[in-house]
Amino acid sequence: MSEPIRKIMLDEKSIPTAWYNVQADMPNPAEPALHPGTLQPLGPADLTPLFPMELIKQEVSTERWVEIPEEVRELYKQWRPTPVYRATGLEKLLDTPAKIYYKYEGTSPAGSHKLNTALPQAYYNKAAGIKRLATETGAGQWGSALSLACTFFGLECVVYMVKVSYNQKPYRKAFMQVYGAEVIPSPSMRTASGRQVLELNPDSPGSLGIAISEAVEDAVSREDTNYALGSVLNHVILHQTVIGLEAKAQLAMVDEYPDVVLGCCGGGSNFAGIAFPFLADRFQGKKVRLVAVEPDACPTLTKGVYAYDYGDLAKLTPVAKMYTLGHDFIPPGFHSGGLRYHGDSPLVSQLYHEGFLEAQAYGQRTIFEAALAFARSEGIIPAPESAHAIAGAIAEAKAAKEAGEARTILFCLSGHGIFDLGAYEAYLSGGLKDVPYSEEALAKSLNNLPKV
Amino acid sequence: MSEPIRKIMLDEKSIPTAWYNVQADMPNPAEPALHPGTLQPLGPADLTPLFPMELIKQEVSTERWVEIPEEVRELYKQWRPTPVYRATGLEKLLDTPAKIYYKYEGTSPAGSHKLNTALPQAYYNKAAGIKRLATETGAGQWGSALSLACTFFGLECVVYMVKVSYNQKPYRKAFMQVYGAEVIPSPSMRTASGRQVLELNPDSPGSLGIAISEAVEDAVSREDTNYALGSVLNHVILHQTVIGLEAKAQLAMVDEYPDVVLGCCGGGSNFAGIAFPFLADRFQGKKVRLVAVEPDACPTLTKGVYAYDYGDLAKLTPVAKMYTLGHDFIPPGFHSGGLRYHGDSPLVSQLYHEGFLEAQAYGQRTIFEAALAFARSEGIIPAPESAHAIAGAIAEAKAAKEAGEARTILFCLSGHGIFDLGAYEAYLSGGLKDVPYSEEALAKSLNNLPKV
Repeated sequence: MSEPIRKIMLDEKSIPTAWYNVQADMPNPAEPALHPGTLQPLGPADLTPLFPMELIKQEVSTERWVEIPEEVRELYKQWRPTPVYRATGLEKLLDTPAKIYYKYEGTSPAGSHKLNTALPQAYYNKAAGIKRLATETGAGQWGSALSLACTFFGLECVVYMVKVSYNQKPYRKAFMQVYGAEVIPSPSMRTASGRQVLELNPDSPGSLGIAISEAVEDAVSREDTNYALGSVLNHVILHQTVIGLEAKAQLAMVDEYPDVVLGCCGGGSNFAGIAFPFLADRFQGKKVRLVAVEPDACPTLTKGVYAYDYGDLAKLTPVAKMYTLGHDFIPPGFHSGGLRYHGDSPLVSQLYHEGFLEAQAYGQRTIFEAALAFARSEGIIPAPESAHAIAGAIAEAKAAKEAGEARTILFCLSGHGIFDLGAYEAYLSGGLKDVPYSEEALAKSLNNLPKV
Repeated sequence: MSEPIRKIMLDEKSIPTAWYNVQADMPNPAEPALHPGTLQPLGPADLTPLFPMELIKQEVSTERWVEIPEEVRELYKQWRPTPVYRATGLEKLLDTPAKIYYKYEGTSPAGSHKLNTALPQAYYNKAAGIKRLATETGAGQWGSALSLACTFFGLECVVYMVKVSYNQKPYRKAFMQVYGAEVIPSPSMRTASGRQVLELNPDSPGSLGIAISEAVEDAVSREDTNYALGSVLNHVILHQTVIGLEAKAQLAMVDEYPDVVLGCCGGGSNFAGIAFPFLADRFQGKKVRLVAVEPDACPTLTKGVYAYDYGDLAKLTPVAKMYTLGHDFIPPGFHSGGLRYHGDSPLVSQLYHEGFLEAQAYGQRTIFEAALAFARSEGIIPAPESAHAIAGAIAEAKAAKEAGEARTILFCLSGHGIFDLGAYEAYLSGGLKDVPYSEEALAKSLNNLPKV
């Protein structure tokens, strides 16, 4: 018979009242962002065409705790606190002495952790009198979350969706449209950036870099419109710390503290969300390993360089010091669209550079093998992005078995994989290959970093 | 700004320890099922090729409470208790004095309430030494739930999936395959029933009636295999009462009791699951209305007859007294595959016939209008099946406004609509029409009822 499921629940009153800001505790201050034109340090005024002042303040705040507005906390209650599960089925399958726990963020109505930041971003923009938000989306998780958040706050939402995904993933598009968002295939004729790309190549499939340029241009060109980003930025990282704060409280309820914490890492917000509240303890002397898991087809932390780089192809966004593969690096096609960004969160990058964080990379066959083992032992079909954390946790559980130690492992399962069943089908039918990135392309894109 | 979300949660200890059996309280005993060959009342021995003895006992039990096995209760904990929400967003949109509550079953890893019965069915079969379960699925919700349940209990699972859905819904197929199920397009060459259909029409798109025949034949022909059904039968209805039992406890926590309870109704298990625990109170003199909501394209309760009929096209299943449109009635194509069955639960049918339940029918444009209003005000995209209950609740809320009364409305939101975004897209682009059934076809199929 089956193993008992062990779910650790908090009550609603235990939803955190403040987000944790790692900038308060970092041994060195965060490296400043630069203006993309002048390459000089950015001031708040440079960001006001894009973001409301409250988010700009959060971007540079060094206060340890940032209060969560009551309206946002009320909306968090729709699905938060999220459960922490003891992965008894997976433990049994692996025959490991390790205790594996996971925090599941897929119960959000948007299907992933992205709603944790979409809600406060919509809230602060609404409070600042903004009527409309522009954003980009690749795989669609972020666009879905922002569409939903805008509905709750009565904001218009326009999503520039990478054209190849727009055509391949009609359900994602429909998801956003159900929530009333306008979804535009990118590159589009709406913006100068889009028109420029289309002039050179009318059949361009688009890319995240182009879509970001279009959304930023849209926001800058309209008084009533701001821009919203789903990862990378400091305020996004901040909002995601509800994940780790809750998880810490949940493990404490069963007298546990993790030896290692893992999260998948693209732009870094999910990993930082689960890891930074534990990093806070590490800054206080507590022993805990923090592991970011990324795709080996877009290996920003494990194969990139720590340098100033642009956030988008058209060089419209601020220049940040981060691990990067180069702003014109195009990763090969693989089934974790949410982990295809060329850069990484500046905060994650700096703390990784300073030795507080670890990183691992896996190929997509390993990822889907882990995903399938998880679905069949734990009952939840994970998003391929989230399965990176599973693969990392499985490796840790095997290492614990090797060492004969009952280590405690915690990972974040960032979202469900219901939109990714096409990729599962490809894997099940044997049609899924590992896709190495091109060493030559990487060398070339690393040559194009701005000279700072 | 947005309305506060009000979620009413039970703790795990409050998951019911027993299911409620309406057969204990019905004023008249349930009408017996008949043998499809002899049309004489069935004995337990007639059912042993299909079901384990524990489920056969539940089918005819008149005990008020049937204990939930501890192993099943443990697995329920993965997602139960499910939340009850106060629909403040929808109330505001409708500007109604009514208080609207909904019980949300879509947080199950299978995405719907179907897992409530899939787990105990897998459990009792495993306990009886069965190695393999055969079933059919149309839209896919039931096949998904049974695949997952079989994974938990280490059973093989074979799902005969209506061929047109198999081809149109590759994601549903992949979902079941991820959980290790074998999914076969029906009609197939595996069974005599399938071969017979294919001989007459090699291009047959299949139907639920044919798929049921194939699954039953598969189960009967193998010693190690039983059959499992996702609705209609008394033991399925029994298992679904966890929904209403929890909901009653949750409303009591906020000192509420509903004036009216609604559920969508195809085979009847979701409606009965939310309604029967309240019907128990009504038998004790409490005033509460119980409303089944069905599609007007397959209007079993509102336009069918109360008569003995076969459960499948090949006449392999028991003959039950129920509201039916005739076992060879083929409803027109509409986007609520889970509500296309020609018959209805015998228990629901009898209690409706005796005046304890009400029924309403809506066209699919009304359904999707309700679904969209709900998604935009409450944040959850409902399955089209579930949206029937929403449409019914909206009608009740409007009636309450008309009457100027602060009535309390409870409905069951049986599952999420992430697999149904194709239908939403058709609605949003104006391509969705109401599809009336054929009066002529109905008259013809009602002419083919068995002469009992």
